[in-house]
Amino acid sequence: MNDIFLKACRGEEVPYTPVWIMRQAGRYLPEYQAVRAEVDFLTLCKTPELAAKVTLQPVEKLKVDAAILFSDILIAVEAMGMHLEFSDRKGPVLSDPVRTKSGIDRLVIPDTEDSMPFVIEAIKILRSQLNVPLIGFSGAPFTLATYMIEGGSSKNFLNTKRMMFQNPGLFSLLMDKITMTVISYLSSQIRAGAQAVQLFDTWAGALAPEDYKEFVLPSVKRAIAELKKEGVPVIYFVNECAALLKEIKKTTADVIGIDWRIDLKDAIKGLGKKFAVQGNLDPCALFLPHEKMEDKVKDILWKGEFAKGHIFNLGHGILPESPAENAVALVEAVHRFSER
Amino acid sequence: MNDIFLKACRGEEVPYTPVWIMRQAGRYLPEYQAVRAEVDFLTLCKTPELAAKVTLQPVEKLKVDAAILFSDILIAVEAMGMHLEFSDRKGPVLSDPVRTKSGIDRLVIPDTEDSMPFVIEAIKILRSQLNVPLIGFSGAPFTLATYMIEGGSSKNFLNTKRMMFQNPGLFSLLMDKITMTVISYLSSQIRAGAQAVQLFDTWAGALAPEDYKEFVLPSVKRAIAELKKEGVPVIYFVNECAALLKEIKKTTADVIGIDWRIDLKDAIKGLGKKFAVQGNLDPCALFLPHEKMEDKVKDILWKGEFAKGHIFNLGHGILPESPAENAVALVEAVHRFSER
Repeated sequence: MNDIFLKACRGEEVPYTPVWIMRQAGRYLPEYQAVRAEVDFLTLCKTPELAAKVTLQPVEKLKVDAAILFSDILIAVEAMGMHLEFSDRKGPVLSDPVRTKSGIDRLVIPDTEDSMPFVIEAIKILRSQLNVPLIGFSGAPFTLATYMIEGGSSKNFLNTKRMMFQNPGLFSLLMDKITMTVISYLSSQIRAGAQAVQLFDTWAGALAPEDYKEFVLPSVKRAIAELKKEGVPVIYFVNECAALLKEIKKTTADVIGIDWRIDLKDAIKGLGKKFAVQGNLDPCALFLPHEKMEDKVKDILWKGEFAKGHIFNLGHGILPESPAENAVALVEAVHRFSER
Repeated sequence: MNDIFLKACRGEEVPYTPVWIMRQAGRYLPEYQAVRAEVDFLTLCKTPELAAKVTLQPVEKLKVDAAILFSDILIAVEAMGMHLEFSDRKGPVLSDPVRTKSGIDRLVIPDTEDSMPFVIEAIKILRSQLNVPLIGFSGAPFTLATYMIEGGSSKNFLNTKRMMFQNPGLFSLLMDKITMTVISYLSSQIRAGAQAVQLFDTWAGALAPEDYKEFVLPSVKRAIAELKKEGVPVIYFVNECAALLKEIKKTTADVIGIDWRIDLKDAIKGLGKKFAVQGNLDPCALFLPHEKMEDKVKDILWKGEFAKGHIFNLGHGILPESPAENAVALVEAVHRFSER
């Protein structure tokens, strides 16, 4: 069992810098495309054997140091009682967006074993087959709230901010329900076998720092504090985190995921010595000529040395257009250049 | 003549903090909608009397301290030789995106008087009617390059970064041609009567700081240095600027426009004492209850005191959904709370 990833999460000595790639089980892989040609996206998420199969593909092909469960952050939102569809053009569509008290009252805090048994099953299959740690994940409360309030993706998050600003009590009620869902969902994933969990706060970077502090941070702190009791490392990834580090450092996460828009050394400086960091190569760097990509890898590895621990990753999900062979080369380069 | 805006740009004493709003001549105004009901967007940009009319509307209604020429950043791109259309669904569409040497060679550096006489004419009309300073503007080189390479808006700027990373010589050739266009275009605006100019770098924040430094900063520095010779204040606005301030401070701009994702005090600290700042209220704050919006205004005004000069603005363009009366209230609040 290769536990280098877990060691790095805890800031322990490692023989080389571990690496995995956000969205590593995805469309850039021909093997994944072959599976998707047979089933739609949601069926794939909900069929444990298939979800396990695509989770394993990048572990075998890329030789990454961790697997991440193949799923979608909106699976838990569907289980809360919303109707979820994926449209090719518009992405996820949640019909009947939540914007009222009665809309919030209708939502349930789902029991993972009952409403998402396929997740538990996939984790169990994976644990029996993996020789690297398995990461479970969930959307962070605010990011899930944006989808639920907007009814899908959004450019300006106007409906979300409108509720937050005009009806903070209602917004807080929704955030509480989501936070309890996130805690329960990830705890179940951990009990089923997930060896670390990541909270994805994809959209929190759209907030002014003082609004993040007031409306988002309390839920995140609470979720992370609860999850820490389960005894596995908690990773908190905030996209566009540069101006939020001062607040993010108030959480008790083990690892902070850093997007590519900030210099990793500056991010580490902003966070202080308490955290391991994960990141932060621009996903578009996979289109660089080989040698130049390696230069960027070396630079990030060097900067990562300043943190308590470093897990190499992209600064956001790998793009579907990425050449798979470059992802293989990336992992190989991280391992080669970081060998102690 | 109210020249408080110009004084603040230069860091001089002012009786109150001047304010204008990015995209203040726009769809949120019923008066603007009435004009647009009669003509399409590009016709509006290219008809001096109408462009002047909608430029004046917010000055009269909101009592802002500066006017900004009504136009679009892609007008100059069209003049470089690209075919521009605005689609309701997809936004701007530039057919035949520039991705090759021959594509770049076909582009011209337009003479403003010849290819965009309507801009010169609109400025002259406005100067004869305005009692506040008139701001001219252009897209910054990188932001214009993204539209030209992508053929419109983009999510990941993959084609742009691909050219930048895989063919830096070609990318630099394109940036040079755009930079020369920007310099010539804004110099013409100044000579026609623009009393300050703003460079909009809407998409530069999508770059890792080291890529910004290598591929964007040299063009921006050069454009600003040239424009400074014209003797009017130069404002450089970078959207998502938080992690780029260390580089941005290497320019000789008079004013740095700050988006809302960073605390203004942190931004000022990052920039140092050399610059006046402009910003940085979240455009969604216009949906706050009156009193809470005022709290945010007061907070930003207080933080602005730490800079060499402060011009109040939103952190990005005003949203079309914004209630016009709240924009009026915003300007009034800035004036009231900042009175010395």
